[in-house]
Amino acid sequence: MEQSPVFRLCEGATARRAGVLDRWLAGRLQAVIEPAAVRLELWDGTCSYAATHPPIGTLVLRDRRTLIGLLVDPDVWFGEAYTAGDLEIRGDIGVVIEALSRIALGAPTLKERIRGALAASNTLASARRHVRHHYDLGNAFYEQWLDRDLVYTCAYFPQRDMTLEEAQHAKFDLICRKLRLRPGESVVEAGCGWGTLALYMARQYGVRVKAFNVSREQLAYARARAAREGVADRVEFIDDDYRNVKGKYDAFVSVGMLEHVGARQFAAMSDVLRRTVRHSGRGLLHFIGRDARRPLNAWILRRIFPGAYAPTLAEVAERVLTPAGMSVLDVENLRLHYARTLAHWRQRFASVEDSVRAEYGAAFQRAWELYLAGSQAAFGTGWMQLFQVVFAPVDTPPPYWTRADMYAPQDHECTASTR
Amino acid sequence: MEQSPVFRLCEGATARRAGVLDRWLAGRLQAVIEPAAVRLELWDGTCSYAATHPPIGTLVLRDRRTLIGLLVDPDVWFGEAYTAGDLEIRGDIGVVIEALSRIALGAPTLKERIRGALAASNTLASARRHVRHHYDLGNAFYEQWLDRDLVYTCAYFPQRDMTLEEAQHAKFDLICRKLRLRPGESVVEAGCGWGTLALYMARQYGVRVKAFNVSREQLAYARARAAREGVADRVEFIDDDYRNVKGKYDAFVSVGMLEHVGARQFAAMSDVLRRTVRHSGRGLLHFIGRDARRPLNAWILRRIFPGAYAPTLAEVAERVLTPAGMSVLDVENLRLHYARTLAHWRQRFASVEDSVRAEYGAAFQRAWELYLAGSQAAFGTGWMQLFQVVFAPVDTPPPYWTRADMYAPQDHECTASTR
Repeated sequence: MEQSPVFRLCEGATARRAGVLDRWLAGRLQAVIEPAAVRLELWDGTCSYAATHPPIGTLVLRDRRTLIGLLVDPDVWFGEAYTAGDLEIRGDIGVVIEALSRIALGAPTLKERIRGALAASNTLASARRHVRHHYDLGNAFYEQWLDRDLVYTCAYFPQRDMTLEEAQHAKFDLICRKLRLRPGESVVEAGCGWGTLALYMARQYGVRVKAFNVSREQLAYARARAAREGVADRVEFIDDDYRNVKGKYDAFVSVGMLEHVGARQFAAMSDVLRRTVRHSGRGLLHFIGRDARRPLNAWILRRIFPGAYAPTLAEVAERVLTPAGMSVLDVENLRLHYARTLAHWRQRFASVEDSVRAEYGAAFQRAWELYLAGSQAAFGTGWMQLFQVVFAPVDTPPPYWTRADMYAPQDHECTASTR
Repeated sequence: MEQSPVFRLCEGATARRAGVLDRWLAGRLQAVIEPAAVRLELWDGTCSYAATHPPIGTLVLRDRRTLIGLLVDPDVWFGEAYTAGDLEIRGDIGVVIEALSRIALGAPTLKERIRGALAASNTLASARRHVRHHYDLGNAFYEQWLDRDLVYTCAYFPQRDMTLEEAQHAKFDLICRKLRLRPGESVVEAGCGWGTLALYMARQYGVRVKAFNVSREQLAYARARAAREGVADRVEFIDDDYRNVKGKYDAFVSVGMLEHVGARQFAAMSDVLRRTVRHSGRGLLHFIGRDARRPLNAWILRRIFPGAYAPTLAEVAERVLTPAGMSVLDVENLRLHYARTLAHWRQRFASVEDSVRAEYGAAFQRAWELYLAGSQAAFGTGWMQLFQVVFAPVDTPPPYWTRADMYAPQDHECTASTR
């Protein structure tokens, strides 16, 4: 991750006393965060928390620059300052971030609308660059804290005490059931990560898969696994953009990719669906979504996911599926499963934070700590949604009569309700 | 149902020979319907069907006026002419209508867009008038061909060979499970028909229900049933518009009502949800929907459902749920279940068509025959959708962790998959 100038500022911080202006500004900021029961403390210990209930945590600011930054552009400055160490969080970072997320729930701000309107389109080149920014950090980095199969998307926990590995497999199985995959069918996967779903579908459901990705590190890893698992004849990993998918398939699947497409490319995405889903086919989109149209948090966009956009269900229905001639058959919101997935990731990340800090630097470790905590809070509070949408060509009968067999025990075993 | 001038025209039809102009016009119309393998025959037996495969049915036109009407404004004239007897369908009316529906699938026409833009808003008064147009035809009419509980919405057939009565109860139970109703909770129902769902929820799930409707015939019937079933203390039937719902409820439910709200009243509908769903609450909308924004068939709008509009999922998400601060949790498309429901209704309607004709006249019987056949075709082909949407306030945890227990056998019985 590139170093921003702000990362180098913390050395210059001084412990000088807060002045009248500082106290007045701190009062304004304290008023904003007090409904979340979060206390603000300045560099000299000054604090104006006035609520009668005890605070759940404290934000400690190291200098005036951070104070002003948080007032002027909180979306960006919170992440930048925490990353640089100019903002400390006392108390449980997850609890504090979740409380701050709750008070931020509401209609998009003017600034967000403007940012949304100005967002650049993802060309073939910038899409490749953006994906590499995040996913080519090195397999070794992700291997430290993802599950053993390197699945970097929302898992599904039909039993709440499942391990992360089990929950990722349960997610794959839910997707295959929703798609009603049958042996011998052809599947195209747009954005295949380290290839785990593609390999799972070929192994467990006997389908042939073409899986697209533009992250070279991930593709190399996926191809090696396909060879090792003896399914290289049924799973082809292709180094290309989803817009270049050719051919017709029985099923289209995309997990955690639509967020990277960007709103300006929805017509291109729609065109891919129209071209590649057979008349008798169907598809599934699994993506991070929103209730209202708004850009991602500005800091996340700058530091973590450049070019990303989490669409509303309405945008996906109207701008991706309808122009492709697709009907929506089934939608499931799994946001609480993403919050649980992130809790697992945070726990694992925390257990390796020393080695991450040693290898990638303190700012990098702090940025990722904040990103994971912020994401858990976002899915836990309803700030972000996780949608799975099943669709089929409008004049094709839906692939299932009811959803019951998505939930039927396999081999007709009798099990109790899983709630 | 009011009599249109066209209903009285058939007496004047003559058997004169088709001229050159008639044959030329018939050729144009035959070209349009030939992909559906439907043959066109003029009043003197003239026919220009040229396909090599045999036709699945024939449209027989009685006069030039009908021929021109079908070319100029097919949406309206087809229904008008069939109702008046100026258009006969030889062969299975259901098969012919379904085939014609398939060739009509496509983007909205300019005429449809203009009609959509010009659609009048449903005021409190016009909403009441429109509902009465259809639902106050007389309970005796509906009792002849609906199920014994008078349920006039899409049923749900978890087993394909269920009776219509069983399938309506299965639909109610699916709705109650999707809403996770618990004894003692309060439910508001907007548009309650003859009250069957309200009574079912109170009886089977122990909830208190306030059910709104503006059809007096339906309300009188529903109140009598509540008294007879001994649940009048838990179910209140209220003669008022959904926009006048007061109070806060644990659950909001509306089945087959949103279609009658009209696109211009979505903000009002949204406001009702915002006002009436408790913070810990949730709701379900069950409605006829479309893939793309377009008005209902013009004849259906004129003769069967004045003021109605079947929205897209995107419109409901963006214009009803998002402004109400609601997140979409679950969507299911049940269009094939509606096609099956309509097949049941058509069978029952056909068995009483003589008495309907005797009591309401031939034009009325033909209009309803066509409306039911057209609806079955629309849901069967994908021209129309049936959506069930579950939602909850954005900052409230979804009422369920997985959907599995919607499909768990009750009392943990072990049953085979129901497909």
